[in-house]
Amino acid sequence: MGFRKKWLSYALVGTLAVSSLGVMASQDAQAKDNKGKNKEEVENVIMLVMDGSSDDLSTLARWYKGEDLALDRILTGGVKTYSAESAITDSAPAATALATGNKSNSGYVGVLPSIVTTPGVKPVAEKDHFKPVANVLEGAKLDGKATGIVSTSEIQHATPAGFSAHVAKRSNYDDIAEQQVYQNMDVILGGGSDSLSKTRKDGENLLEVVEAKGYDYVTDRNELLKSKSKKLWGSFAPSAVAYDFDRATTKPEEPTIAEMTEKAINTLQKDKDGFFLMVEGSKIDWAAHANDPIGMISDFLAFDDAVGEALEFAEKDGNTMVIAVTDHGNSGITIGNKNTTSGYDTTPVKDYIEPLKEAKMTVEGALSLLKADRSNLLEVAALYGITNPSAAEIKALQETDTKKLGSIMVQLLSERANIGFTTGGHTGEDVFLYSYGPAKPTGLVENTDLAHTMAKAMGFDLNQLSNKIFVNAEESFKKLGYTTSIDQTDSANPVFVAESKNKLVKIPENKNIVIVENKNSGKSKTHELNTVTVYNDRQFFISEDALKLAK
Amino acid sequence: MGFRKKWLSYALVGTLAVSSLGVMASQDAQAKDNKGKNKEEVENVIMLVMDGSSDDLSTLARWYKGEDLALDRILTGGVKTYSAESAITDSAPAATALATGNKSNSGYVGVLPSIVTTPGVKPVAEKDHFKPVANVLEGAKLDGKATGIVSTSEIQHATPAGFSAHVAKRSNYDDIAEQQVYQNMDVILGGGSDSLSKTRKDGENLLEVVEAKGYDYVTDRNELLKSKSKKLWGSFAPSAVAYDFDRATTKPEEPTIAEMTEKAINTLQKDKDGFFLMVEGSKIDWAAHANDPIGMISDFLAFDDAVGEALEFAEKDGNTMVIAVTDHGNSGITIGNKNTTSGYDTTPVKDYIEPLKEAKMTVEGALSLLKADRSNLLEVAALYGITNPSAAEIKALQETDTKKLGSIMVQLLSERANIGFTTGGHTGEDVFLYSYGPAKPTGLVENTDLAHTMAKAMGFDLNQLSNKIFVNAEESFKKLGYTTSIDQTDSANPVFVAESKNKLVKIPENKNIVIVENKNSGKSKTHELNTVTVYNDRQFFISEDALKLAK
Repeated sequence: MGFRKKWLSYALVGTLAVSSLGVMASQDAQAKDNKGKNKEEVENVIMLVMDGSSDDLSTLARWYKGEDLALDRILTGGVKTYSAESAITDSAPAATALATGNKSNSGYVGVLPSIVTTPGVKPVAEKDHFKPVANVLEGAKLDGKATGIVSTSEIQHATPAGFSAHVAKRSNYDDIAEQQVYQNMDVILGGGSDSLSKTRKDGENLLEVVEAKGYDYVTDRNELLKSKSKKLWGSFAPSAVAYDFDRATTKPEEPTIAEMTEKAINTLQKDKDGFFLMVEGSKIDWAAHANDPIGMISDFLAFDDAVGEALEFAEKDGNTMVIAVTDHGNSGITIGNKNTTSGYDTTPVKDYIEPLKEAKMTVEGALSLLKADRSNLLEVAALYGITNPSAAEIKALQETDTKKLGSIMVQLLSERANIGFTTGGHTGEDVFLYSYGPAKPTGLVENTDLAHTMAKAMGFDLNQLSNKIFVNAEESFKKLGYTTSIDQTDSANPVFVAESKNKLVKIPENKNIVIVENKNSGKSKTHELNTVTVYNDRQFFISEDALKLAK
Repeated sequence: MGFRKKWLSYALVGTLAVSSLGVMASQDAQAKDNKGKNKEEVENVIMLVMDGSSDDLSTLARWYKGEDLALDRILTGGVKTYSAESAITDSAPAATALATGNKSNSGYVGVLPSIVTTPGVKPVAEKDHFKPVANVLEGAKLDGKATGIVSTSEIQHATPAGFSAHVAKRSNYDDIAEQQVYQNMDVILGGGSDSLSKTRKDGENLLEVVEAKGYDYVTDRNELLKSKSKKLWGSFAPSAVAYDFDRATTKPEEPTIAEMTEKAINTLQKDKDGFFLMVEGSKIDWAAHANDPIGMISDFLAFDDAVGEALEFAEKDGNTMVIAVTDHGNSGITIGNKNTTSGYDTTPVKDYIEPLKEAKMTVEGALSLLKADRSNLLEVAALYGITNPSAAEIKALQETDTKKLGSIMVQLLSERANIGFTTGGHTGEDVFLYSYGPAKPTGLVENTDLAHTMAKAMGFDLNQLSNKIFVNAEESFKKLGYTTSIDQTDSANPVFVAESKNKLVKIPENKNIVIVENKNSGKSKTHELNTVTVYNDRQFFISEDALKLAK
C-alpha cells in the first residue's frame, strides 16, 4: 500500500491526528496585534486577472458595450509584464510574478527561474533554480484569512495555479490539482474537474479528498447559488467553462464569472480575519490567441462584470484592496487596421462596432454547432457575424478545411470590423494597472511589485514566508542528524523519507501531511500542515513546521 | 493699400496706439487675488504631447534605452482619444480636445465640430459649427502668464496649432502662422519658417512682424542657447526639424527637443505670474505612419528627455503641473509579431533590441543619403540596420522602386526585430496619462478633461473664456446698431467692417488689431487686443474687448 492510499484513507475517515502548529498560530496572532496600527494594512484583497487582455481591448469592449466599464473607475497606472527570460511573458511566469513577487521562466509555476537573460533581472543561484516560493494566497491563509480562487479555465491552468501551486511545468496538472486540494483553500470555483480524478496518472481520486475535507462540491450554477457552505468547491466543466457569449446556447447550466466572484466574496467574507481572492477571466487570452475579437469582447465584458462585483463589495467594505490587471498583452489587437490606413480620421464608431454586433457567438461557439457534413456552414458563419456573405467570403469559407475554418472566420470578421492583429502570440507592452482601496498600488510598477504590495497590505513579507514554508528537506533533516532519501517506489507519488535513531519521517509530495513514526514504540502519527510539500523533481521543499516535528 | 500692409507698417514702425483694455486687466487682477487661496491652483503648466506615440512604444523604447524613462516616474492613468466623428482621432481634433476641451472633427483646429456621430458626444447647434473656442494657452496669457510652444514639426502643424490658432482646416498654414504671430506668445521654438514668409499666399511677411514685435529671432542651436531675450522665436527648419537619430549626420545645427524645452522653460519662468508651455514631439507620429520603429524610438526618447527637463523644473519649483500624453495611438506597433506567435515566451529582449540597434539612422535619414544612381543602396540599407543582408533581402531592396524603398526597408527591419504593425494610420485605443504636480489629473479621463483640468489649475474656465474672446462679430455689432459687412477686396485678407453713424470699425482676420475711425473727425486709431480675430470662412469672431471699442 503506497503512501497515496494511506493519506487518502486518513482524509476520508477523518481520523487525522492534526497538530495545531505553533509558528503559524503565533504569526497569525502577530498579524492581529498589528491590525489597525498600520494604516497600510487591509482586511481583504481581491486580485482579478484578465488573462491575455490588452489596453486596446478595453477601449473596443467599451464601445461594444456602449457604456463605461467597471474598470474605468479604477485605472491608476501601468504594469511591466516581461519574464526573467523573455520580453514577452508566458502566463505561468506572469502568474508567478503576480502571486510570489518573482520573475520566472516559461511554464514555471510558483518556482524560481533557472534562465535569467532579461536586463535588470537578478540571476538566481543554481541551487535555487526551480525552488518554490511563497505566494500571497499562502501568506493570507497563514495569517488566518479565508482564501479562494475563481477561474473560467480549468483551475489548474497557469494563472490560478500560480496562486495555489508550485510546479516546474505548467502542464503538470496532476501535481497542481493535488496541491490545490491540499492547500486547504476555502473557495475554489471554475472548470477542471477532469484533473481531480478522470485524467490523473497517479491513481489519486481528489474528488474523494475534496468531499472528505468537507467542501460542498457543486457542479452547476443552481447548486452554486444555493450553497450555504463556508467551504465551497465548484467544478463546472471538465476543463474550461464556455465563453460568456456562448453560454446561453451551449452551457446554460454554467455560472458566469461575476456569479462565481459574487459567491466567492459572500462565502469568504464570513471569515472574521478577512480574505484573499484571486479571480481569473481566462479565455480572453484564448480568444486573443485565435485572433477572435468576439471571444475577446465576450470574456472581457464578463470579466468586467466580476470587477464590478469586487468593487461593489470593496466600496461598501472600505477595507478591501482590489487590483485588476492583464498578465500580458496578446494578439496586438487594434481599433483600426490596413483598411483604415487612410480614412481613420472620419470612420465612425459604428463602422467598427456594428459588424461585431452581428456575431451572436464566439468562433469557438459557432463552430461547435457545425455539422459534420458542413451543410450548415453559412448559418454557422452567420452566427459568427458573417451575415450576407459576399461571393468571395462564401468561396473562402467553402474552400477552407474544417480545422482551419476558425482562422478564416476571424479574418473575415476583423476585415469587416476594421480590427487589426499583429500576432497569434502574446505581446510585450506595459499594460494598464487598475486598483482600488487602501494602500493600493499606483503608477508604473513591475508585475512582481503587485505581489509584494498585496503581501505588505496583508501584513506579511513574501521572502520571509518563502524561507519559512519552503526549506530544503534534505539539507534541513541532515543538519538534524537524519539520513534522507526519496522513495520513488510509486514513481507518480514520490515521498521524502528521513530517518534518525528514533524516528522515521515520511513526507509525500503535493500534500500537507507529515508522518512521524517512533521507531522504538512503532507508533505513527500523521500531522497536517498549513502548507503543501513541493517536490520539484530535484529536491523536496517543506515547511519549517515539518522540521519541528522531527526535533 | 490693403489692411495687411497697414498693420504691418504699424507693427514695423512701432507707432501703434495701444489701449490697455480693462477687462483683461481686471481678469488678471482677479487671478492674482485668488493666488494661494485655491489649493488647486498652480503657477505653471507644462503640457507635453508625443504625437502618435503608443503605450507599446514606451516599453520598446525603454528596452532600447536600457534604463527607465522620465515618463515612467509619472504614469497616473489613461486618456480616451476619440473625436466627435471617429473612433480614431486625427491630430487636429485631438489637439483641439487637449487645448480647448472640445471634441471636434478631422482637420479642425480650435473650432467646434460640424459632424458629431460618436456615441456620448453632445451634438453642436448648427450655428456653432466651426466656431472658435478658447484654448488653455489663451487663458493663461489673459491671466498674465507667459506662454510658449515648442515643436519638432513646423509650428503650424496640427498639435501646436491647436494650442495657438483657430482654423477649420489644419492645412491652412497661412492663417495658422498669422494667428500665431499675432497671439503675442513669448516663446515659439520649432520648425516652420516657410510659413512665415516664403510659402505664403496672402502677401504677408510675418518674419518682419516677428522682428517688429521684439522677438529675438533665432535659427540654429547656437543662437538659441545664447539668447537672453524674454521674447524668443526660433525657426530651425523650413518645415520639420530632423529626427533625433539623424541630426548629427544631417542637421547638426538644429537643437534637440530637450534643449528647446529647457530654453523655453528658462525663458518663460522669468514671468512672475507663471507660464504655460506646450511641447510637441511631432515626428513620432510620422515615423509611426511609416511603420519605422527607429524613427519612433528616436523621437520618443528625445521627447522623453524633454519630459525629463520639464520634471526637473517642476520638482524644484513645486508649483508646476506637468502633463504628458500621446494624442492618439498610431501604427499598432507591438513587441512581438507573426514570427513570435510561437516562441514569444522564450524570446529574450535582445532578439528585439539588437536588430534595432544596428540602425544608425531613421529610414528617412538613411534614404536622404541615397545617391540618384542607387550605387550606395546597400550602405544606405546598412545605415538603417539591414546589415549583412541575406540574398532575399538584397533582392527585395534592389527590385524595389526608389519611392517604395522606405516601406521595404522598414518591413525588413521589423521582420528582423520581431516588431508588429497593424496599420499605417492612427489607432483608437485609450493611452497612458502621465502627470505630475499639484492638482494633476489622474485615472481614466477624456482628452477634453485635460484642457479643463489645466484651465481650472490656472484659475479660469474655458467655456466662459470662449464666450469672452470669440463673440460673433456680425450679431454683436448689429445689436449695437451697426451695419456690418466683410470686405474681401483682398481675398486672402478679409476684413470685418462695422459702420455706425459716427464710427467705422475695421477688424482684419488672424490679427489682434481693431481700427476705429471717427467719421466726424476722420481720425483713426488702431487698438491692439490680447487675442486674435478668427474668420472661419463664414463668420468673424472677435473679443468682447473689440466690441467695447465700438460702444
